[in-house]
Amino acid sequence: MRLSLLGVGLIGGSIARSVRGSTTADAVADAASVDIVGWTPSGAGAQAAKAAGVVDEVARDLRSAIGGADLIVIAAPPLACLELVDAIGEMSALAATALVTDVASTKRAIVERAAAAGIPFVGGHPMAGRETTGFEASSDDLFAGRPWVLVEGPTSPRDGVERVERLVRWCGATPLEMTAAEHDDAVAAVSHMPLVLSAALAEAVAGGEGWRSAGPLAASGWASMTRLARGDPEMGAGILATNRRPLAEQLGRLRGVLEAWESDVDRGDPVQLEERLESVRRLLRDLETP
Amino acid sequence: MRLSLLGVGLIGGSIARSVRGSTTADAVADAASVDIVGWTPSGAGAQAAKAAGVVDEVARDLRSAIGGADLIVIAAPPLACLELVDAIGEMSALAATALVTDVASTKRAIVERAAAAGIPFVGGHPMAGRETTGFEASSDDLFAGRPWVLVEGPTSPRDGVERVERLVRWCGATPLEMTAAEHDDAVAAVSHMPLVLSAALAEAVAGGEGWRSAGPLAASGWASMTRLARGDPEMGAGILATNRRPLAEQLGRLRGVLEAWESDVDRGDPVQLEERLESVRRLLRDLETP
Repeated sequence: MRLSLLGVGLIGGSIARSVRGSTTADAVADAASVDIVGWTPSGAGAQAAKAAGVVDEVARDLRSAIGGADLIVIAAPPLACLELVDAIGEMSALAATALVTDVASTKRAIVERAAAAGIPFVGGHPMAGRETTGFEASSDDLFAGRPWVLVEGPTSPRDGVERVERLVRWCGATPLEMTAAEHDDAVAAVSHMPLVLSAALAEAVAGGEGWRSAGPLAASGWASMTRLARGDPEMGAGILATNRRPLAEQLGRLRGVLEAWESDVDRGDPVQLEERLESVRRLLRDLETP
Repeated sequence: MRLSLLGVGLIGGSIARSVRGSTTADAVADAASVDIVGWTPSGAGAQAAKAAGVVDEVARDLRSAIGGADLIVIAAPPLACLELVDAIGEMSALAATALVTDVASTKRAIVERAAAAGIPFVGGHPMAGRETTGFEASSDDLFAGRPWVLVEGPTSPRDGVERVERLVRWCGATPLEMTAAEHDDAVAAVSHMPLVLSAALAEAVAGGEGWRSAGPLAASGWASMTRLARGDPEMGAGILATNRRPLAEQLGRLRGVLEAWESDVDRGDPVQLEERLESVRRLLRDLETP
């Protein structure tokens, strides 16, 4: 089997390392016969991955990366993923049995784009990441025990999900089938809105004149609430731009909740404030003990 | 010297452990001659601290805890601190040279209250904490290297700040003098608004019907953004109730920033979104490399 990675950064590199390092008996029998081809826009990243023994072969261009590949994984920032889907569609260089998947953080845009491009496609999203990016940050346990969402689309072949599931298992992750809409609504809530909030908090506070006295008092609460805002801006922008509607809905809901907090703080009734905080804590606790 | 702790939980317990474990030469000479008296409302917590060898003596009531003490540290949740200030004022049991300080997260309310009660007072706020509370969570390095804000008030004796600074150094922390208003504005921004945001995010998302599909996708970003909402509700409510105006101002500013994000997301221009995220990242980075 020939596995082609379009992008060998944090995610692509971790996929390659995971396939190479697969340890369960099934996975080893399966993954041992995989040839991993790497392609990156400038070629430098793929060369580095080859030098590190993580990919077997560096493709000299996109056409040779996809030609003859059984499974092609687009592992690029969200907007670059969309462009690669278009490019693959225009090239008509796919083998008859080829299947394309991706790892982008939003699924509706890319599933629609793959359908428009007429390429055999199953959307994917491993729920794992780091703030650091690039091949240097990749590891063979990034996906271990994490969910990996799989999304069927109009151009998914009948056995498409099953074939990507095999890759997911090599990576030690758990496949989780959803529709593109379910996925995008869910990540808008638990991932994309938190990113916007983190950035907004940093702008509201750290951009203000009060920072000179506030900065020295910033502690672990500040650090954890601004962590997401320190992530890769290109990735973040691609995520927000391709998940506008679900995100707007979440931000609208949050606006209402924050207005209620403003009036509760204004009233300042300690009993009511404690009840509200207690019910939030209970809510979080109940969610985590299924 | 007789040091009296009103409250022997996370903070009071950590103060006692720190004084006992003081390791710099100056601190040892100084701290070795300190008798630590513990008082807690039910007595059980103080007994546990004595059994653990952390306090020398358990006071049988509040009056005997403050009588004869040189330095009294009120180490209780914010609203309980205010009540203890009142109680101390009414008792008229302080020694002539006694000084009272506290560790509450807001300073304006308690400095005013101490002035009204006519007790010799210097406000304090060690910028250190944990999500876990109680004596069991206390440690002798909780304050190490952290700022400890000191606030003078109308009833601070001339050498008051200096005397509390000695305690701060025993705890390995760095004294930082501010006015009550400067302190409360600063913590509203870097600590109290983040708490409200964390709770609001949890309510908006985890309280909704979408949680069934969103929950399994929650990853480290969700965990770090909801961490503060898992803290002690009594403490949180006391903080919000005693810092209403500065907090309202911060929430108002954040509302404006979030509205701008809503319209940027709605427009969905990836270039502009990336520029905004990049400038947030640069802002945070610049703040951290002085």
